[in-house]
Amino acid sequence: MKKLNLSLLFVSIYSIMGFSQEDFTQYVNPMIGTSKMGHVFPGATAPFGMVQLSPQTNFEVMHMADGSYNPKTYEYCAGYQYKDSTILGFAHTNFSGTGHSDLGDFLVMPTIGNLVLDPLKTSDGRKGFYSNFSHDTEVAKPGYYKVNLDSYGITAELTTSDRVGFHQYTFPESDNAHIILDMVYNVYHYDHKNVWTFIRIENDSTITGYRQTKGWARDRKVFFAAKFSKPFKSYGHKKYDDIKYDGFYRRFQQEENFPEMAGQNLRAYFNFDTSENEQIQLKFALSSVSSAGAMKNLNAEIPHWNFDQTREGTKAKWQKELAKIEVKMMTPEDKITFYTALYHTNLSPIIYEDVDGQYRGLDQNIHVSDNFTNYTIFSLWDTYRALHPLFNITQPQRNNDMIKSMLAHHDQSVHNMLPIWSHYANENWCMIGYHATSVIADAMAKHVGDFDTTHALKASVNTATVAYFEGLGDYMNLHYVPDDKSHSSVSKTLEYAYNDWCIAQIAKQVGNTDTAEEFTKRSTYFNNVYDPTIGFMHPKMSDGSFRKEFDPMDTHGQGFIEGNAWNYGLYVPHDIDKMVTMMGGKERMTQHLDSLFTMEIEDKYIEKHEDITRDGIIGNYVHGNEPGHHIPYLYNWTGHPEKTQARVRMIMDTMYGSTVEGLCGNDDAGQMSAWYIFSSLGFYPVTPGSSDYALGSPLVEEAKIHLDNGKTLTIIAKNQSKKNVYVKRISINGKLLKSTFLNHQDIMNGGELIFEMTNKL
Amino acid sequence: MKKLNLSLLFVSIYSIMGFSQEDFTQYVNPMIGTSKMGHVFPGATAPFGMVQLSPQTNFEVMHMADGSYNPKTYEYCAGYQYKDSTILGFAHTNFSGTGHSDLGDFLVMPTIGNLVLDPLKTSDGRKGFYSNFSHDTEVAKPGYYKVNLDSYGITAELTTSDRVGFHQYTFPESDNAHIILDMVYNVYHYDHKNVWTFIRIENDSTITGYRQTKGWARDRKVFFAAKFSKPFKSYGHKKYDDIKYDGFYRRFQQEENFPEMAGQNLRAYFNFDTSENEQIQLKFALSSVSSAGAMKNLNAEIPHWNFDQTREGTKAKWQKELAKIEVKMMTPEDKITFYTALYHTNLSPIIYEDVDGQYRGLDQNIHVSDNFTNYTIFSLWDTYRALHPLFNITQPQRNNDMIKSMLAHHDQSVHNMLPIWSHYANENWCMIGYHATSVIADAMAKHVGDFDTTHALKASVNTATVAYFEGLGDYMNLHYVPDDKSHSSVSKTLEYAYNDWCIAQIAKQVGNTDTAEEFTKRSTYFNNVYDPTIGFMHPKMSDGSFRKEFDPMDTHGQGFIEGNAWNYGLYVPHDIDKMVTMMGGKERMTQHLDSLFTMEIEDKYIEKHEDITRDGIIGNYVHGNEPGHHIPYLYNWTGHPEKTQARVRMIMDTMYGSTVEGLCGNDDAGQMSAWYIFSSLGFYPVTPGSSDYALGSPLVEEAKIHLDNGKTLTIIAKNQSKKNVYVKRISINGKLLKSTFLNHQDIMNGGELIFEMTNKL
Repeated sequence: MKKLNLSLLFVSIYSIMGFSQEDFTQYVNPMIGTSKMGHVFPGATAPFGMVQLSPQTNFEVMHMADGSYNPKTYEYCAGYQYKDSTILGFAHTNFSGTGHSDLGDFLVMPTIGNLVLDPLKTSDGRKGFYSNFSHDTEVAKPGYYKVNLDSYGITAELTTSDRVGFHQYTFPESDNAHIILDMVYNVYHYDHKNVWTFIRIENDSTITGYRQTKGWARDRKVFFAAKFSKPFKSYGHKKYDDIKYDGFYRRFQQEENFPEMAGQNLRAYFNFDTSENEQIQLKFALSSVSSAGAMKNLNAEIPHWNFDQTREGTKAKWQKELAKIEVKMMTPEDKITFYTALYHTNLSPIIYEDVDGQYRGLDQNIHVSDNFTNYTIFSLWDTYRALHPLFNITQPQRNNDMIKSMLAHHDQSVHNMLPIWSHYANENWCMIGYHATSVIADAMAKHVGDFDTTHALKASVNTATVAYFEGLGDYMNLHYVPDDKSHSSVSKTLEYAYNDWCIAQIAKQVGNTDTAEEFTKRSTYFNNVYDPTIGFMHPKMSDGSFRKEFDPMDTHGQGFIEGNAWNYGLYVPHDIDKMVTMMGGKERMTQHLDSLFTMEIEDKYIEKHEDITRDGIIGNYVHGNEPGHHIPYLYNWTGHPEKTQARVRMIMDTMYGSTVEGLCGNDDAGQMSAWYIFSSLGFYPVTPGSSDYALGSPLVEEAKIHLDNGKTLTIIAKNQSKKNVYVKRISINGKLLKSTFLNHQDIMNGGELIFEMTNKL
Repeated sequence: MKKLNLSLLFVSIYSIMGFSQEDFTQYVNPMIGTSKMGHVFPGATAPFGMVQLSPQTNFEVMHMADGSYNPKTYEYCAGYQYKDSTILGFAHTNFSGTGHSDLGDFLVMPTIGNLVLDPLKTSDGRKGFYSNFSHDTEVAKPGYYKVNLDSYGITAELTTSDRVGFHQYTFPESDNAHIILDMVYNVYHYDHKNVWTFIRIENDSTITGYRQTKGWARDRKVFFAAKFSKPFKSYGHKKYDDIKYDGFYRRFQQEENFPEMAGQNLRAYFNFDTSENEQIQLKFALSSVSSAGAMKNLNAEIPHWNFDQTREGTKAKWQKELAKIEVKMMTPEDKITFYTALYHTNLSPIIYEDVDGQYRGLDQNIHVSDNFTNYTIFSLWDTYRALHPLFNITQPQRNNDMIKSMLAHHDQSVHNMLPIWSHYANENWCMIGYHATSVIADAMAKHVGDFDTTHALKASVNTATVAYFEGLGDYMNLHYVPDDKSHSSVSKTLEYAYNDWCIAQIAKQVGNTDTAEEFTKRSTYFNNVYDPTIGFMHPKMSDGSFRKEFDPMDTHGQGFIEGNAWNYGLYVPHDIDKMVTMMGGKERMTQHLDSLFTMEIEDKYIEKHEDITRDGIIGNYVHGNEPGHHIPYLYNWTGHPEKTQARVRMIMDTMYGSTVEGLCGNDDAGQMSAWYIFSSLGFYPVTPGSSDYALGSPLVEEAKIHLDNGKTLTIIAKNQSKKNVYVKRISINGKLLKSTFLNHQDIMNGGELIFEMTNKL
């Protein structure tokens, strides 16, 4: 059951195969998107690493006086905001780019001087244990992060293997140095998510423990095992409840040097004497199974104390992933934007199993991943669109494993459902649809993976027939989701219809014609929410009438979720021709799209909407959130591909960038970045589940996609320039492409895809 | 790793071997001791069963208005008080006879009529789900319990296998019948102990889940899997917190028919239609590992729906245990008292592993018990005295396994300590000393078991040298526990000295003379707290002076725990001759003992002391608690064995009985009952760790002890009567016994031990 770590082997094979030795990690800047609403983190991680170790910056108000939700915390989904000047510590788990939050497990903070265990402020008004820092001292690279903690004169360096965080703190001379382990900290709501925390001091330099939280994931358990490079001279903890350990008598002085700590909220500390520039290292391993599992991970992945060795090993893993697409860009900035986007597509889902294949399942039992690597963090409403399709090109083996992970999730689900949003052995039900079916259908359409397709069909059908799920029972009965019964009724109807089409594709491949017919029929239900009298998708009531109060501009409560009818109403990815016809034909659709991109949306329609901000908006088109990601490509269906070409180039230029503000909205676990990668290469998977891509306008001058099958597709944009956004002609391996679509097989065959660029229409 | 269940095999072998076919289970009345302070439970369990399924009666005030501890709840350590007339439900775990409480896991209650989920009273003042009951309808037998729930006309029957509770409820006709699963209930403090609860509805008749509590055990997790014999028509739950499962939107109606429930406090219900006299059965399995483990236990132990088959199987297990000692008593009542006491010595420790040997260890990791059965609930300050010595006669294989369990506990302990009070993968540190060393030394002195004695010595020494444990550092430095540094300083000094003697015995057997010498020296430290000027053990201060304020009569804060100097000051079990000499010689000690049994103790000395009540007191001698259990036998060392003989007969007659008030104090996990078994047979292990027993006066007319080595010791009390309490002569296999001591080998050789009784001195 022991799995070999193949990455170093792959790196060697890549070198042998003569691929470029250019260091692509140099073009990645993890700071991009850390400002405003990108929600990405700058810390250290291996590709798809279980440990994502990153600084947590000091958000102004974590505790509302009345204990209520503080909307400001939304900015802190990844624990870090670039505008901040203080760091609370370094946490081992962080979401990348999500629009809601959790995690922040096991905050570690080195300090010197009088011990302070309060993060922000002590009860008598003194400064908490946070440190001031300056971006000038920050270094963020794939698998490496460094910062000076100015309040203490401590330099912090972080790297990781897949399952182990490696801290290296360089201290000044002190007889009062500390490393704090704050088990209270959670992203969002500092201290409201803990169910239980537990620490054991195994010896003078080894500690283990776990915590259970009830945040976004309602029943989440994370275990750890950690080793310090130097024995601590003493240790202790503070807890924030009255739980007794020793009955009626006070048997021990437990706060100091007592090796067992437990309670709802614990903060532990470890004391050291340090000489000038002395380095204390900490290896901190995670597991979903047990602290014994974490110890196994620690010993397997980092048996040594060589920080640089781990850093270099992880850098090599990144080089392997990044080298899969070699690009020449028009500007150095674009190259940084491109490789950082590619980096962002390799952060989640994350590996979610111990080195021996054990992991905690949705039923809270321990399972073993036979013949696959188990993953979690499936933000599927986002990632089915472009991230998983991208994986079918760059990460087919991982995508196969991800689908197997989804099937295992289904098998463990008491609902018999594929994941909606899989989250550390929990389903958090975030957003709508059952888009795991899209990921499965897309992989099958592209012949990726060796998962059990019959089982995948059964799991998909099971998922699509859970009557109590989100209006699905009504959808099955009425052929639409009635707006008086369920929120976001139009969005649900449209997405269910698309997912049902995906299931029909799976059924066809499996050869189950009955199921294919049934779900093909269901896939037409989008018809039922189109209102020809107003030319928009329109919420429909149980009695069959359309809702009376309705504003197609509004994003609030109009039958859509995180979008308005202008954008979200264009969501029929599996039958765009039909949609175009239904909505008045090509000309009218072209006008709709033109208007969408040019009209002004009033503030009232988007204010109070966390996921939609001005930064991500062009006219009334919202690029900062997912429902519209296919829209710029729709002109391909209205006879105006040149409008797609201009628009996608404009979006790449304005909505992405190489600065800390380089993401116009949540990266959403890599979806936003995957859109950029595809669009840069000149094509986009408008309909996951089919093998077709719609063509756009490449941003690259040249790209080499090194495929898993050993072939390479070289993309060349002839006559490329910032102004030459139009595509005059396209050829594949010398053959002129007559449509504005590309097939997946065209990519997998390798060879040359040549775009001839022009500035003329 | 699968372990065979050998009990039925043993039963067959016993029959083949021609042992008595008398049904000894008929003499057991589990109701004995359920009144007042016996703290035993009347419910169903297999010998040493992991599931101990018993009714929980309605204690008046569980919630104090201010949330504080209600001293009345002390009576409810086993969840049941005979005086009560209402039942709240049936819980699957209960301590037997302890003086502090926890457990009460998974309360199940059948009801009919409008669903009520509040146990005592609804918020609008209606009756809770409890039922009235009458003792007239109660049947309590080994492995079986029955009662009518008068409020509902439901008959409840319970039986168990080792790890599975089997409920059988006979309903009246109803279209509104319910089975409630109350996950909130805990023994003591109804709703203050839960950390987390979790339920999954696997299908229409199978449920799984777990709960984590922070009671006496700080980090306790119990998992379950349960099957109903009939599908429920609907189900639901109520929870008592605001934990969200589905983010910002209300995605599901979760209270009803939603198969996943979680929160700090859950009450679930399952609805049925029932016809007149319809039986609904429920098999409810536990595990410390996982719900998957519980399901394994369920399927392995009770794969069928035959309630009587399980009941008969468990009865056969009890018959096997009870038949090990066949007695003829002078009265039918004494026979009931005897076999009920024997029954009570077979309730704890409990088996604490799944059928495949997996169990949760002290480090919260999952371990496998290779080559032994893992046990928990070691109330060692109580049970090392007579219960474990009794096991060396009646349960040598189990005692061997218990010692291996203690060694595993040591290996998992972050303190490197043997258990003090082992409690479901927790150490609750209750009471003082490190008496696991006594259990080990006693087994070794009696050549019981095949545990690793070298490891046992190391574990014992590790335990005895943890400086931060309960004044042990001071004890090692000063050679006594200083009273100004540590509570119960004299008790600790005396018990540490005895335990150190035990370690010396272990070391001698292992052949480690250095350790034997070191601990023999430590075993003399009892000297250091004897104050010859007052003739009592006396708390000593760090500066070497005896404490000024001191009352040898008082049980509160006088340097002793749960006892006063008159009683507890006689605690030098390993060198009684020296103690007698030190305290003034045989005559003075005889006078001390005479006074102890005849003087009056004033109320002020014992009031507010939960563990010492008038019921368990003779003069100033306290039989209702453990520190004095060896005292009646001490006359053997002062030249007055006849006084021991009279006294132990008097204690057996007055402190034990066959009614519900038949226990004069907490049974303390079987110690009180083990005292009775030994004393009834005419001897007692005053010094566990030696192979000697002090003789008393048998209560039996005849006893046959069927030994594990195939031999039988027959004890005959010639001329036995209620008045003939004195022993004139004793012979073993025809040879006259010259001392008043018996050696373990005398027992193990089998044969005849004849006491000739008389009423004359």
